[in-house]
Amino acid sequence: MKVTVWNEYRHEKESAIVSNIYPEGIHQQIASFIEGADVATATLDEPEHGLSEEVLNNTDVLIWWGHKAHDEVQDIIVDRVQQRVLEGMGLIVLHSGHFSKIFKRLMGTGCDLKWREADDKERIWTVMPGHPIAEGLPEFFELPKEEMYGEHFDIPAPEELVFISWFEGGEVFRSGATFKRGNGKIFYFRPGHETYPTYYDSNVQRVINNAVQWAKPSTNGYPTYGNYQPLESISEKE
Amino acid sequence: MKVTVWNEYRHEKESAIVSNIYPEGIHQQIASFIEGADVATATLDEPEHGLSEEVLNNTDVLIWWGHKAHDEVQDIIVDRVQQRVLEGMGLIVLHSGHFSKIFKRLMGTGCDLKWREADDKERIWTVMPGHPIAEGLPEFFELPKEEMYGEHFDIPAPEELVFISWFEGGEVFRSGATFKRGNGKIFYFRPGHETYPTYYDSNVQRVINNAVQWAKPSTNGYPTYGNYQPLESISEKE
Amino acid sequence: MKVTVWNEYRHEKESAIVSNIYPEGIHQQIASFIEGADVATATLDEPEHGLSEEVLNNTDVLIWWGHKAHDEVQDIIVDRVQQRVLEGMGLIVLHSGHFSKIFKRLMGTGCDLKWREADDKERIWTVMPGHPIAEGLPEFFELPKEEMYGEHFDIPAPEELVFISWFEGGEVFRSGATFKRGNGKIFYFRPGHETYPTYYDSNVQRVINNAVQWAKPSTNGYPTYGNYQPLESISEKE
Amino acid sequence: MKVTVWNEYRHEKESAIVSNIYPEGIHQQIASFIEGADVATATLDEPEHGLSEEVLNNTDVLIWWGHKAHDEVQDIIVDRVQQRVLEGMGLIVLHSGHFSKIFKRLMGTGCDLKWREADDKERIWTVMPGHPIAEGLPEFFELPKEEMYGEHFDIPAPEELVFISWFEGGEVFRSGATFKRGNGKIFYFRPGHETYPTYYDSNVQRVINNAVQWAKPSTNGYPTYGNYQPLESISEKE
Repeated sequence: MKVTVWNEYRHEKESAIVSNIYPEGIHQQIASFIEGADVATATLDEPEHGLSEEVLNNTDVLIWWGHKAHDEVQDIIVDRVQQRVLEGMGLIVLHSGHFSKIFKRLMGTGCDLKWREADDKERIWTVMPGHPIAEGLPEFFELPKEEMYGEHFDIPAPEELVFISWFEGGEVFRSGATFKRGNGKIFYFRPGHETYPTYYDSNVQRVINNAVQWAKPSTNGYPTYGNYQPLESISEKE
Repeated sequence: MKVTVWNEYRHEKESAIVSNIYPEGIHQQIASFIEGADVATATLDEPEHGLSEEVLNNTDVLIWWGHKAHDEVQDIIVDRVQQRVLEGMGLIVLHSGHFSKIFKRLMGTGCDLKWREADDKERIWTVMPGHPIAEGLPEFFELPKEEMYGEHFDIPAPEELVFISWFEGGEVFRSGATFKRGNGKIFYFRPGHETYPTYYDSNVQRVINNAVQWAKPSTNGYPTYGNYQPLESISEKE
Repeated sequence: MKVTVWNEYRHEKESAIVSNIYPEGIHQQIASFIEGADVATATLDEPEHGLSEEVLNNTDVLIWWGHKAHDEVQDIIVDRVQQRVLEGMGLIVLHSGHFSKIFKRLMGTGCDLKWREADDKERIWTVMPGHPIAEGLPEFFELPKEEMYGEHFDIPAPEELVFISWFEGGEVFRSGATFKRGNGKIFYFRPGHETYPTYYDSNVQRVINNAVQWAKPSTNGYPTYGNYQPLESISEKE
Repeated sequence: MKVTVWNEYRHEKESAIVSNIYPEGIHQQIASFIEGADVATATLDEPEHGLSEEVLNNTDVLIWWGHKAHDEVQDIIVDRVQQRVLEGMGLIVLHSGHFSKIFKRLMGTGCDLKWREADDKERIWTVMPGHPIAEGLPEFFELPKEEMYGEHFDIPAPEELVFISWFEGGEVFRSGATFKRGNGKIFYFRPGHETYPTYYDSNVQRVINNAVQWAKPSTNGYPTYGNYQPLESISEKE
């Protein structure tokens, strides 16, 4: 199992608040707690954003964190990531990655939401306790301060809704949601604003680790499409 | 369109608090605001709980409120209501009806949840704004005091999740959920504890009216089942 | 209710077989049987493909048929149609429209499938008989000759699967599938190869008419997104 | 991982055709190919149908085959199996088990279908190729002769539809379908009429083995329900 953690890696270079929390970058912090996989990282400012064909062809699950530079991700790389998801690569999209080109491409919707930076307490409730992504988690866990994300979240109805967030200021959010596109499994997970130490939280880490295992690719190839003239079909019709 | 509002009708006879709010019974208050349909009522203590075969065969949508006497509903009536739902009758289950025999029968699960009677403020968020049941409703509406219902709610994953509730005390709940069983459409809607004037709230009334229209039966008959030997099939195989 | 029927309108000009079946174009034949709505048409070779902002802003449900010239549809028009779907416009995608830019945009997948032009008999089975789109239809209906479309169909799992096709040559296909994107309802319906008189079939017409009614927009506006600082939230947190 | 294979075990004792195919019973044949688990069997005519509390409490995944004696299964055992599914035990229901008390209990519907015993060829198509239950399977596989099951199949819409069957005589069927109830995962798989050697087919065996792995229980306990007064909630509201 090979996991690639992709991070925009800009906030950490530009903000003392963020670099104090994530001195090596959000990607390195995430990479540090992934278990049961070989982990590599890739960032926006590397050639091909670190996502060459070779890297992606050798990635089983891709984790994506981006925020302020979504538009700088080249469309050719978005095409490449989408194709790999359809072929079976797992994709875990975190927090402000809701607005990334790749997530919008795979959802087909605007992916917008309400937000507020006001140190709201967040309580994340498990609504599908038997799901592999909820394995080992309590009925709810709290993040003492986070950015608020509120409904309506403009995504297709999740195929599985695993978590719902409650916010101190009065909002709710579908915080843990699964989708399938082609052979690929996708998990969106809400928490992780850059100004809070969210990726040091053990429950958050557990969710992401569970999601990595859940999203591992099938060994089935991508299906055959196009003109279909099998002998069986022809013989049957005689 | 014919709507039957079923109510257990016990709290109103036993509690001054409840009878002050609903002097004619919860069923009469609900019946009073249903639009675009002929409305009748039925209650637990009537013969056959007011749900004779004739009544049910002439009901397009049945609304169900029950709480303290679920066990007194006879199984033969539960069978009858289930059969009518499978044939196409709509069913709207309100609040503590989550624990009714008919809802548990149709869900196949325990239908349990967390609850607290502590005058929590409830904020009901629309998460599927284009759904017919959300028609004309704001992004959220509030009930200043309600009983809290919290996750995990032990139902199958809703086919459509229309509303999520936020509670002041820190909980969330899947408050508006649709299901189909056979030809019948089912809507569960959370609000409506007997000690609060919830069914006088115009947004609550709007939701229930929308649900009645959404749940109206198809004119298609119930499908044909069993041994199937159509001429077409036989001839095709020669 | 305003319906716009969009057609590529190329086969009819280039093939005698097709123009014999649809002398006025597939769009005119579809427009001729739509009931309960004002119907207009639009085609690829009109300015803006007949889909100006004014036309789209006044369209409640858009029907889409395209096949050989998907690439000629300008991206700016695809953007515009997508935006209108998110705002609530219904969209019915027919047959080879599975490969249109707009359908692939809204699905997020490749939308590919198997196909064969061999006069297969198609039998379309209703698997959700209580659904509004199945209203008035028999358990199955047949098209004596059609192009075969076979699984795997590379779409997200349909939110509702209304019809499954059986083909004489040995294949199955998810033929009638619903999706929601933003406020908009989408229905994909398989039949309608240009060399067969499929849009003269009364059952096919019934499905499309039902879908038009089902896909009508909500009157709710598109939700509010972005920075969210309501007074209620602020006051609550003190 | 502990698997219990439950079989009615009546046809094998009463019919020479069946006992020739399954001399030790269908349960023993199924038990013989399950991999990666300790496997035990249980049958209708054992005390408590072989499903004592001890047996069920030690079962991770239960496989169910029944047909002609569904009514002889005691309700108290059905209650017990349902409770274990809600707690997390996986359940795989095979073929005519569609009409078992436990499957109808968990579905909430009639679970009826069309059938024909006419040696139809069955072709089982994978419509969700990336699903763990489809792992290692071809795009379709065939059973040269089987009982036909045809739509409409009176179940709730499957949460995941993995396989669709094509039958020579003109029918289709949703043959591989997943559901969740409480913490438990359920898979219905169509093939396996007692007069055909279906459980010797390697693709059928692969599906059932995949399903066993997919259905393994979560280690999360069943959620807490009822009156909920956590200190956190109370303190928050002051």
